[in-house]
Amino acid sequence: MPKSREIHLVQRPTGAPTPDDFAMVEREVGDAADGQVLVQNLLMSVDPAMRPRLTAGQALDEAMMGGALGRVVQSKLDGFAVGDLVTHRLGFREYFTSEARGLTKLTPDPDLPLTVHMHALGGTGFTAYGGLLHIGQLKDGEQVFVSTAGGAVGSVAAQIAKLKGCYVVGSTGSDAKAAWLRDTVGLDAVINYKTVPIRQALEEATPKGLDVYFDNVGGDHLEAALRRMNTLGRVPVCGFISGYNSGHSNVSNLSNIIYSRVMLRGFVAPDFMHLYPDFLRDMAGWLKDGRVKYQETIVDGIAAAPGALIGLMAGQNAGKMLVRLAS
Amino acid sequence: MPKSREIHLVQRPTGAPTPDDFAMVEREVGDAADGQVLVQNLLMSVDPAMRPRLTAGQALDEAMMGGALGRVVQSKLDGFAVGDLVTHRLGFREYFTSEARGLTKLTPDPDLPLTVHMHALGGTGFTAYGGLLHIGQLKDGEQVFVSTAGGAVGSVAAQIAKLKGCYVVGSTGSDAKAAWLRDTVGLDAVINYKTVPIRQALEEATPKGLDVYFDNVGGDHLEAALRRMNTLGRVPVCGFISGYNSGHSNVSNLSNIIYSRVMLRGFVAPDFMHLYPDFLRDMAGWLKDGRVKYQETIVDGIAAAPGALIGLMAGQNAGKMLVRLAS
Repeated sequence: MPKSREIHLVQRPTGAPTPDDFAMVEREVGDAADGQVLVQNLLMSVDPAMRPRLTAGQALDEAMMGGALGRVVQSKLDGFAVGDLVTHRLGFREYFTSEARGLTKLTPDPDLPLTVHMHALGGTGFTAYGGLLHIGQLKDGEQVFVSTAGGAVGSVAAQIAKLKGCYVVGSTGSDAKAAWLRDTVGLDAVINYKTVPIRQALEEATPKGLDVYFDNVGGDHLEAALRRMNTLGRVPVCGFISGYNSGHSNVSNLSNIIYSRVMLRGFVAPDFMHLYPDFLRDMAGWLKDGRVKYQETIVDGIAAAPGALIGLMAGQNAGKMLVRLAS
Repeated sequence: MPKSREIHLVQRPTGAPTPDDFAMVEREVGDAADGQVLVQNLLMSVDPAMRPRLTAGQALDEAMMGGALGRVVQSKLDGFAVGDLVTHRLGFREYFTSEARGLTKLTPDPDLPLTVHMHALGGTGFTAYGGLLHIGQLKDGEQVFVSTAGGAVGSVAAQIAKLKGCYVVGSTGSDAKAAWLRDTVGLDAVINYKTVPIRQALEEATPKGLDVYFDNVGGDHLEAALRRMNTLGRVPVCGFISGYNSGHSNVSNLSNIIYSRVMLRGFVAPDFMHLYPDFLRDMAGWLKDGRVKYQETIVDGIAAAPGALIGLMAGQNAGKMLVRLAS
């Protein structure tokens, strides 16, 4: 009967989250009862989308919800064996018992590291794939801008656009991430928005305008992109990280979408689940032949999870931010 | 060889346009040369979309561009006979000669007033039709909100939604227009946004949320609607009148489109020209059997045109604003 440490939200942050908003709580977790499995989490995902749920959606004094990958360590449930890997949304905790609702069995690709199933070959990669190709209706050779291009979603979106023969501009918030995007990924132009004004830099980087803006940021990035959109351009809106801490994200030139007849569309990955088999096939191939590259920032131990989320919101991750609990 | 009076833009307005921004200029217009027609304008259209062109797009010291309906009074061009009616975008002038580029011959419906070809059965009606059915992908029985529902586009959009069995809320800026929408058109709820806060009023008027918001306003109306959008809702963005005078139209809660996976799409009528035959058939029928009603505000003489545009921006029109030059 293991003990499980969990991360609770104990108060709702105003502005950027701080360590005081979280607490680590130890709980007894029973053995698996009939019809249950006991799961030990191995990896937990830390995502920008967790931030708005801290303001509304995430219950106080309960374990933080979020994507994770675990291993079945006891099973009294048909179809699950000890050693099976499962993905789920039950988040920031070490162990839990479950009747398997919300658990998805994972057969890891033997030729790839397990961690890629938590990003490029998992939810963030699929979000990038469907957001760009289905919601954004990307066509080969178009002009593309991706914000937070050093992040888990943005880096995949930018690379898929490159694979489709597009001219791709990425924005990021550090020189190190900018160098990776320029030198390793090979984007056509990279903007460090902390050192140059995004509006002017994007104008200079997009002499042929923009057909698709893959938006993770909103705010000033979206304003800058709306000034550059070509006729019938598309803006798949994946995230609005500029507004997550403040709760507001002003956009002052939305009327631009009329003259250029631009579409903005908010989305989540379940909107295009029919593409999932295509995604798994394409992305596994791209990862194996090195055409999609990735970075990971992995911290160890559940006590590090709140700091990982705080650091993510401050842009301290390179690529996917993960918490490793066991291996 | 007639003289033609024209309305010129002589300076760009800052904020609401004023009479000083315009001048009336008299010009000699030659007779029709070989390959030309001479057209006398009968009706000129006054539209909210003219306002942003005063800031950028409309040349200074030239006749204001805009939709109009004229009659051929001389023809030295095959295919055009004296008496033919033509629609065009050459706007605020009494007479002009043309090689017929940009002229479209109009065969008026003998069972309807000529003026309806300038609104419900013309450009504004087609904008409403395609914006709602094609861009907005309206489905029967949905929850719908139309802003400036007393205007030329909004009133048609609201009535098409009613014809499709939808629950329809309209906003407008006067009690008289609100009464027309409630008592004559029969909308399910009507909001006079000048007497009640739009956000609260829309919340109360939409107990089942919104599937489609037909946006002519932007700004606070769009913010109020984004709070009420149902999952996979659609916002055809036809106009942003709230920002036309200021040049800005802040929207602070655009991130709402992510969680509800909402689509916003700017459009102009040429985006759905393939629907034009369907529109003409449907709308002529609806007008003849009284299922689509309309209001007109008609002022006489070209000297009244600047005041008509100024009044339109102040909401002084009921329904379509027209300038009549001749009959």
